[in-house]
Amino acid sequence: MNGWIAAPGILSAEIMARAGWDCITIDMQHGTADYRDLLSIFPVLGQTDTPALVRVPWNRPEDIMRALDAGAVGIIAPMIENADDARALVEACLYAPDGARSFGPVRARLAYGDSYAREANQNILPIAMIETKSALDDLDAILQVEGLGAVYIGPADLSLVHGFPPGFDREEPEMLALLSHILAQATKFGVPAGIHCGTPAYAKRMVAMGFQLVTVGSDMRFMEAGIAQALVEMRAP
Amino acid sequence: MNGWIAAPGILSAEIMARAGWDCITIDMQHGTADYRDLLSIFPVLGQTDTPALVRVPWNRPEDIMRALDAGAVGIIAPMIENADDARALVEACLYAPDGARSFGPVRARLAYGDSYAREANQNILPIAMIETKSALDDLDAILQVEGLGAVYIGPADLSLVHGFPPGFDREEPEMLALLSHILAQATKFGVPAGIHCGTPAYAKRMVAMGFQLVTVGSDMRFMEAGIAQALVEMRAP
Amino acid sequence: MNGWIAAPGILSAEIMARAGWDCITIDMQHGTADYRDLLSIFPVLGQTDTPALVRVPWNRPEDIMRALDAGAVGIIAPMIENADDARALVEACLYAPDGARSFGPVRARLAYGDSYAREANQNILPIAMIETKSALDDLDAILQVEGLGAVYIGPADLSLVHGFPPGFDREEPEMLALLSHILAQATKFGVPAGIHCGTPAYAKRMVAMGFQLVTVGSDMRFMEAGIAQALVEMRAP
Amino acid sequence: MNGWIAAPGILSAEIMARAGWDCITIDMQHGTADYRDLLSIFPVLGQTDTPALVRVPWNRPEDIMRALDAGAVGIIAPMIENADDARALVEACLYAPDGARSFGPVRARLAYGDSYAREANQNILPIAMIETKSALDDLDAILQVEGLGAVYIGPADLSLVHGFPPGFDREEPEMLALLSHILAQATKFGVPAGIHCGTPAYAKRMVAMGFQLVTVGSDMRFMEAGIAQALVEMRAP
Amino acid sequence: MNGWIAAPGILSAEIMARAGWDCITIDMQHGTADYRDLLSIFPVLGQTDTPALVRVPWNRPEDIMRALDAGAVGIIAPMIENADDARALVEACLYAPDGARSFGPVRARLAYGDSYAREANQNILPIAMIETKSALDDLDAILQVEGLGAVYIGPADLSLVHGFPPGFDREEPEMLALLSHILAQATKFGVPAGIHCGTPAYAKRMVAMGFQLVTVGSDMRFMEAGIAQALVEMRAP
Amino acid sequence: MNGWIAAPGILSAEIMARAGWDCITIDMQHGTADYRDLLSIFPVLGQTDTPALVRVPWNRPEDIMRALDAGAVGIIAPMIENADDARALVEACLYAPDGARSFGPVRARLAYGDSYAREANQNILPIAMIETKSALDDLDAILQVEGLGAVYIGPADLSLVHGFPPGFDREEPEMLALLSHILAQATKFGVPAGIHCGTPAYAKRMVAMGFQLVTVGSDMRFMEAGIAQALVEMRAP
Repeated sequence: MNGWIAAPGILSAEIMARAGWDCITIDMQHGTADYRDLLSIFPVLGQTDTPALVRVPWNRPEDIMRALDAGAVGIIAPMIENADDARALVEACLYAPDGARSFGPVRARLAYGDSYAREANQNILPIAMIETKSALDDLDAILQVEGLGAVYIGPADLSLVHGFPPGFDREEPEMLALLSHILAQATKFGVPAGIHCGTPAYAKRMVAMGFQLVTVGSDMRFMEAGIAQALVEMRAP
Repeated sequence: MNGWIAAPGILSAEIMARAGWDCITIDMQHGTADYRDLLSIFPVLGQTDTPALVRVPWNRPEDIMRALDAGAVGIIAPMIENADDARALVEACLYAPDGARSFGPVRARLAYGDSYAREANQNILPIAMIETKSALDDLDAILQVEGLGAVYIGPADLSLVHGFPPGFDREEPEMLALLSHILAQATKFGVPAGIHCGTPAYAKRMVAMGFQLVTVGSDMRFMEAGIAQALVEMRAP
Repeated sequence: MNGWIAAPGILSAEIMARAGWDCITIDMQHGTADYRDLLSIFPVLGQTDTPALVRVPWNRPEDIMRALDAGAVGIIAPMIENADDARALVEACLYAPDGARSFGPVRARLAYGDSYAREANQNILPIAMIETKSALDDLDAILQVEGLGAVYIGPADLSLVHGFPPGFDREEPEMLALLSHILAQATKFGVPAGIHCGTPAYAKRMVAMGFQLVTVGSDMRFMEAGIAQALVEMRAP
Repeated sequence: MNGWIAAPGILSAEIMARAGWDCITIDMQHGTADYRDLLSIFPVLGQTDTPALVRVPWNRPEDIMRALDAGAVGIIAPMIENADDARALVEACLYAPDGARSFGPVRARLAYGDSYAREANQNILPIAMIETKSALDDLDAILQVEGLGAVYIGPADLSLVHGFPPGFDREEPEMLALLSHILAQATKFGVPAGIHCGTPAYAKRMVAMGFQLVTVGSDMRFMEAGIAQALVEMRAP
Repeated sequence: MNGWIAAPGILSAEIMARAGWDCITIDMQHGTADYRDLLSIFPVLGQTDTPALVRVPWNRPEDIMRALDAGAVGIIAPMIENADDARALVEACLYAPDGARSFGPVRARLAYGDSYAREANQNILPIAMIETKSALDDLDAILQVEGLGAVYIGPADLSLVHGFPPGFDREEPEMLALLSHILAQATKFGVPAGIHCGTPAYAKRMVAMGFQLVTVGSDMRFMEAGIAQALVEMRAP
Repeated sequence: MNGWIAAPGILSAEIMARAGWDCITIDMQHGTADYRDLLSIFPVLGQTDTPALVRVPWNRPEDIMRALDAGAVGIIAPMIENADDARALVEACLYAPDGARSFGPVRARLAYGDSYAREANQNILPIAMIETKSALDDLDAILQVEGLGAVYIGPADLSLVHGFPPGFDREEPEMLALLSHILAQATKFGVPAGIHCGTPAYAKRMVAMGFQLVTVGSDMRFMEAGIAQALVEMRAP
């Protein structure tokens, strides 16, 4: 169970950090986080040793490098199109000889100790989003990229490129078939698969289906839903 | 129905601003807001013309002045002890000859136009919190302070000083009697009364009782509750 | 008439928002804005429904994506070199099937409502800057890129690459001929053309010439000029 | 000639710092500056050795202390009511034995060198605002407070308490008489007098009258005027 | 051994948090910290369960309240003049019936759990600085204030008011006698005593003398010394 | 002697600015600086006219452009792989006709005056990091790139790609031979060479060897070392 921080703030991160998530992702793509937020939110999560992942805005080595240097243990890279993209992601996450990450773990060294240089390659999880048509076309090659830690389905973009309105928790047979297909191929190649969900009920279905990483909703969505419900109650006769 | 911002952020304020509250209070006392947050959050609320109140950290003229200059239309002052405190609050909220507010409405002039200097005294609401024993002792005098806009009950402090654990939505007969008493006196002197609540159900009871301003819960409490519920659902078999 | 924010601040943005510009551009290329500024300034502009454009630092899909997610309705992309660049710009601005923008309009959904997903492609304006020699060489192809909303001339860079000192409001015949040429080709292909100006007088000439979007000066230039003039007056005998 | 920073930003402060003012005041009362702004703006002014004054939000020793520690060389304290207030101001500005300022000049020591502890008392200018009726009543006593550096008239508040609409550059005979009276008394007691003005023309009159410190307008007012004028020119036929 | 944060930053706080101090003080008086820094630095310290103290800018209940709500477990209040000041400090630190702290521990509740309301009064340490002449005059009364947690000597101010240049690590017999006197009286009344030092050598002497809380130097002083030494080495032949 | 800012803050930058370094580099790659930090730290350095370099996160024209516009006089670009990368770096640093930098020096114009447009190309120093295997393979071509200002060795990455644990101040014969080789080739082609060091002793050896730019340690390393040493002293018997 992955918590999702769309709008990082110290107080909301404290709530997230102590809620009991297995890991928490800070979203720099469609969330409002920038680098400075990583630096202030990672220590909040560090109080409860909750592993921190980052969804970078794009598959760029410098964004990945800075997120890892700040203390991320996993990187979710959006808009992966093919095996080359996935390889670039892995390369940006790992030090030589496994990759080409530049050395200088400014906060990670403090947070994880002097053994960080030796152990980082074993602990960092590069995660490729599967959400474009070309990624589906090249799925088997992506899944065979050496060092890839997991794949993660972005249902909103995946729906959009298949002609559906964007959104989570798809029920269209075509979309459900796609999810099954991605999961089956990932399982075949021994790569864990994850998916972004909008409700606990759907997330539980996905876990039952075999997904190993599910996101249930973001900090902001929980707030929005809570406010809406309170106002409904207030206005009820 | 008053919305309560305990941890100001642009995105959560956007959600609050568009939720449909009658007014919204930014909390500088027990919330995390400082002056800079007022400056960035008021425009968010300004998009939907939601009136913005501020609970200042303390009944200090400079804090009240800066909150008003930034665009607040109401000031909730905590820990009011007596009529002198209430008079100081009113004085800090109003320009001469009604008070002693210093002139220089840096953002308010832009937000409300050049007529602000003439109209501010009619529009600003000074609100005294009733939450200490001495305020109860001096209640009638407080309620008769010229220019006082409303009183607002802080149930957590009021409970604490009466020997109960702090918290909202009191059910103790002694506390309920206190709420009734404060409301009755306020009504007698023609001063609107408000109260901070923790749930819609309790807030509706308070409205039914005659309170004219009720807070139902804060942005952070809504988020916290939503997260807790999602995790319960996820862990259910 | 386009206002230009070179150094975003809440107060100066309030002044810009209420000044009466037809639209306002926040400059992330040569201005000081970064992503966090977009998030705090868009609500300021949102109070007066002034359409907000963003000049991104470079023609990168992630910068365009984040500016649009925050609420921009137009993107000015600098240093466009050819039709491929212009196509990449359009693609980054529009959702499938028109483009490849990733879905997740974090603030735009709140600001523009739930119809945003359906309506964004109709409302977003991708604007290509014409300021390099290669762009001039490929001008006709650029102007024929499907979905391009406008072209926008950057006179400082255009002067520099033609051997003139950089600056706005060019009077060299060669430069004026270039402006006419670009405008004529844009008109021929039905693409609106804009230009960055330094004074109202020059901007009016450009409007008279046929330009549909003119910038008259930035917040900082207005301040700088005002200060200089006040000091001249003070020092006059 | 004193420059006035109402809305501190690095870029606008750079413009102010290089404009040629004799000194510059950062306004924490009706401007948007808070402590963090002092810390970032003082170095900008330090590049041109422009002396930096601060108008504190209120006559509080801790605000004065922190502004001085950050590097201010003058403190303008608003809403001085009487000689006791003025004495408190002086005491907060000076180290023992002349006053009671607490020692710890965190940035001032770096900016002014190790001699700061010895020299600060000679260099710091405590300036009392004259803008309330009670200050007028106690004017002679205020002017005789040992160590007071100057008085500074706030015409907006002074107008308001005399029944006029607030604003600078007063022309009412009653107000002009008040200005003359304050200046005459200040001169009598050997205390320099300053005044806040809205235009160069009025500021020059005040200098001619004998005022030794005049403010001509703020960064934001210069910008606002420049924008308004540009839009008038654009809309002219 | 108390670490001292004069200039809070995430990275330097990480270094401090992991260095092995018994507790760490964030300085809001002569350091650069403001409330927002408390909020971002407390989680950094929370990663290693290092107790966090705050030196507030002044003995004001609202500053104390906000520091405690953010998670401070001790408050060092400067410029305490007499027993009344010390009583006000204690009252601001403790909930009723022991004091008058207002309830609303926005981050402290998250950091320390739901038992915070019950346990805070036992855990919070109010610490009065002894650094003025009047505090020396009223020392015994201060030391007998119910609930006072400790006294803390500020040698720079104490030197200044006794006619010495300000600074730490005093060797003047008069100053050493003062330190002994304060320590002796504190011991007599069972109140722990602390002192601010500039070097480990002096701090060890103070511990040997009987002081129970010693500060050895601040983050910025350590950096400054390290830089100076490196440059000396570089310039040596 | 180059100072290195890994964690920019106003106060630590003040200390660095006044320490006496020949130049100072702000690190945006493995340091915590982002664009906003450049904007606030450059004025701090500007007080002492210390030339400011920036290590950009990656060799991207937009990052280089923004750092230069903010006032950098040198750019250290990491992970240069070949002569094409070095040419892109130079091109991003220089205006036409020498390069392709876009014009709009938002703060640089203010800091360096109106002659900036004419003089920038003479003053800006593009510096290529030599730290990858491919850079070594293409070293001679890199060194012959027109306009390259210097090369700068990153020993941590260079060690890593040669199978050694990452770190500064290498003593392995293979690494020392590499340093000599790079220096010899740079000297042959008339390009100054620099290197990142961890101690003054090693830095002096490098200067003696012929390196013209040496970094001795960062602000954070100096602090970390100072704290560790103080705690050792405190704990010694």
